[in-house]
Amino acid sequence: MQEERSFVLAVNGGSSSLKFGLYETGSLNRELSGEVQRIGDGEGHFEIRDAKDKVLADIRKSFPDSRAATGELIDWLKERSARYPVAAIGHRIVQGGPAHREPELVTEELLRSLEEIIELAPNHLPAELATIRAFGKAFVQAAQAACYDTAFHREMPEYAQFYPISPVWRKEGLIRYGFHGLSYEYILQELGKNGGERIIVAHLGNGCSMAAVHAGRSIDTTMGLTPTGGLVMGTRSGDLDPGLVMYLLLQKKIPAEELEQVLTHQSGMKALSGGISDVRELLEREITDPNAAQALTIFCYQAKKFIGSLAAALGGLDTLVFTGGIGEHAPAIRSRICEGLQFLGIAIDGPLNEAGAEIISPASGRVSVRVIPTNEELMIARHTDKLWRG
Amino acid sequence: MQEERSFVLAVNGGSSSLKFGLYETGSLNRELSGEVQRIGDGEGHFEIRDAKDKVLADIRKSFPDSRAATGELIDWLKERSARYPVAAIGHRIVQGGPAHREPELVTEELLRSLEEIIELAPNHLPAELATIRAFGKAFVQAAQAACYDTAFHREMPEYAQFYPISPVWRKEGLIRYGFHGLSYEYILQELGKNGGERIIVAHLGNGCSMAAVHAGRSIDTTMGLTPTGGLVMGTRSGDLDPGLVMYLLLQKKIPAEELEQVLTHQSGMKALSGGISDVRELLEREITDPNAAQALTIFCYQAKKFIGSLAAALGGLDTLVFTGGIGEHAPAIRSRICEGLQFLGIAIDGPLNEAGAEIISPASGRVSVRVIPTNEELMIARHTDKLWRG
Repeated sequence: MQEERSFVLAVNGGSSSLKFGLYETGSLNRELSGEVQRIGDGEGHFEIRDAKDKVLADIRKSFPDSRAATGELIDWLKERSARYPVAAIGHRIVQGGPAHREPELVTEELLRSLEEIIELAPNHLPAELATIRAFGKAFVQAAQAACYDTAFHREMPEYAQFYPISPVWRKEGLIRYGFHGLSYEYILQELGKNGGERIIVAHLGNGCSMAAVHAGRSIDTTMGLTPTGGLVMGTRSGDLDPGLVMYLLLQKKIPAEELEQVLTHQSGMKALSGGISDVRELLEREITDPNAAQALTIFCYQAKKFIGSLAAALGGLDTLVFTGGIGEHAPAIRSRICEGLQFLGIAIDGPLNEAGAEIISPASGRVSVRVIPTNEELMIARHTDKLWRG
Repeated sequence: MQEERSFVLAVNGGSSSLKFGLYETGSLNRELSGEVQRIGDGEGHFEIRDAKDKVLADIRKSFPDSRAATGELIDWLKERSARYPVAAIGHRIVQGGPAHREPELVTEELLRSLEEIIELAPNHLPAELATIRAFGKAFVQAAQAACYDTAFHREMPEYAQFYPISPVWRKEGLIRYGFHGLSYEYILQELGKNGGERIIVAHLGNGCSMAAVHAGRSIDTTMGLTPTGGLVMGTRSGDLDPGLVMYLLLQKKIPAEELEQVLTHQSGMKALSGGISDVRELLEREITDPNAAQALTIFCYQAKKFIGSLAAALGGLDTLVFTGGIGEHAPAIRSRICEGLQFLGIAIDGPLNEAGAEIISPASGRVSVRVIPTNEELMIARHTDKLWRG
């Protein structure tokens, strides 16, 4: 008699997309993976593939919000619940606030506690909590787990967590949280003992951040309270002179609500290039378009400077890892960021870099430079599988 | 027959103090130096010393604003104009905007051009322009020169000058200017050929910034549009996640005018320590006061990270110079900032550092670490003496 299989569903919802993976409990072999793209933006796309990448669902229709996208996924899985019995569902939660320092099982009390910190992530938490409630209603028997993208950084030293602002605000939770924690945690598990003591992981994708990891523990990261800070990104400004922000408010009279949208959605490489935020597209255009070239130059220059900054925090560097959409797939960006960092022991081997090899530094390099594809869904599944078994 | 002597007056006005120096033309030997302290803050102090540091004036009274302080200096000099004939007056101007790239003689046209960029430095430029006009009226025959604190950085590469914000704003002058330019220029002249190719100058005082200098030219600096950005300072926040600023505006409902004051005057070490912005006082208290200790820790940690960041911009480092009130007089701060930077070739010799020697790195150090007292007034005098002779 064949033992009955059961599955862990990992749900990774962003502002305009929803990624998910279904993994067999225990082995965590991936059974299904999928994504809903272009949520709230015209015709969306819902796709599910099996473990052999065969397309099982390919639905094009409008998904006006994350609720609609979640509903589509729930319906699809419910109709096939005999084939894919779901034992547990894990969710990426962007912000756990000061209190939530590691992944945990969802209870009514937990949801209430997260509702209290909604103002720390008003653009993300409400939809994420609604998603948990929707899955809870649809899969009454399944356990659910909340996996915080901030948890990985919650043991950073206080001097890296505190802003030089009023302690009253600090006590109200306005500290440097950092994000991309599930990605960093996955990368560190992949590295295992091969990374050495002092590691910088550069997660470069739609959002970009870097983490400085010392002896397995995050000691600093480029993002702070929100995902707008740190590095220059596709549409986000990264860290700024607050005097510039005040100037735009007070002298240019930009309303605060509008300015927040501008700094999040209309800045970064998109502003520099005159409309293009996608690195692939910028790389295609840079030869003929000086603004595209400049956007890439500033992106790589800022990233280089943050590597220097985090290396100083670590007191030197053993391993540099590139991950995320850009980090994994743009050799030109990797080599430009590393250019001129020979004094840190960073060198890149051209052909290895072009090939996207696991290690792209020459054998003689003092710092091991690596490309590791991240897998946040698998990290969520690992946490969730552990938690629901208790 | 003795040739008649004439003098260059260097005026360096800050928000709460006015420093000045009187130098003999040609030789630039200092004849007088002085300062008005505590402008707009209760009982002020006006003091003038001669070249041998003998006190010539020591007046305690209230100086409600910079006009009152300037008036006192003008009156004092006018009464002694036979003894100190002033040939030229040079002024530190905090912000020259995009157009003013080097020191220049003051004309009515220049003053009008500077009035047009007042909104770039609304807290400084109006008083500085009023000071020039007041001296112009009192010393009709003297030439005047404007020496911009931004000029030194105006040849930074575009990728270091541009913010990742709308090009419309960039064209309106919202770029990274950087400050402390007169101090950096003075330090480089002092260094002469001894600095090597790649130099970081850390000007740590009331305001703090660092400049990355390559082959004599500023290629990057930590301050940007305003003196609030970059490093954590006594009362200023330094660079921030703009999401934090927006959070304080939108969620905490802090009015923008108030927030600007808070980020400039109530943040930095003052906020971290619970009220103390002065590094000497913090150093005295840190043993018994954990908040004072933490303020210093964060100050030094951020400075260390910015050294790493600028070293990356330079592709390595030959010389690190400390200057400014803290940089010149706080060996404990210098050594804490340099701690853990051995991987950059930075080391400090304890006794040399304690003694505030010219070179505080050991002879074996790859990076020459120096302490050089800055002298912005002398730099102003050098520029002014050159300009008025035409």
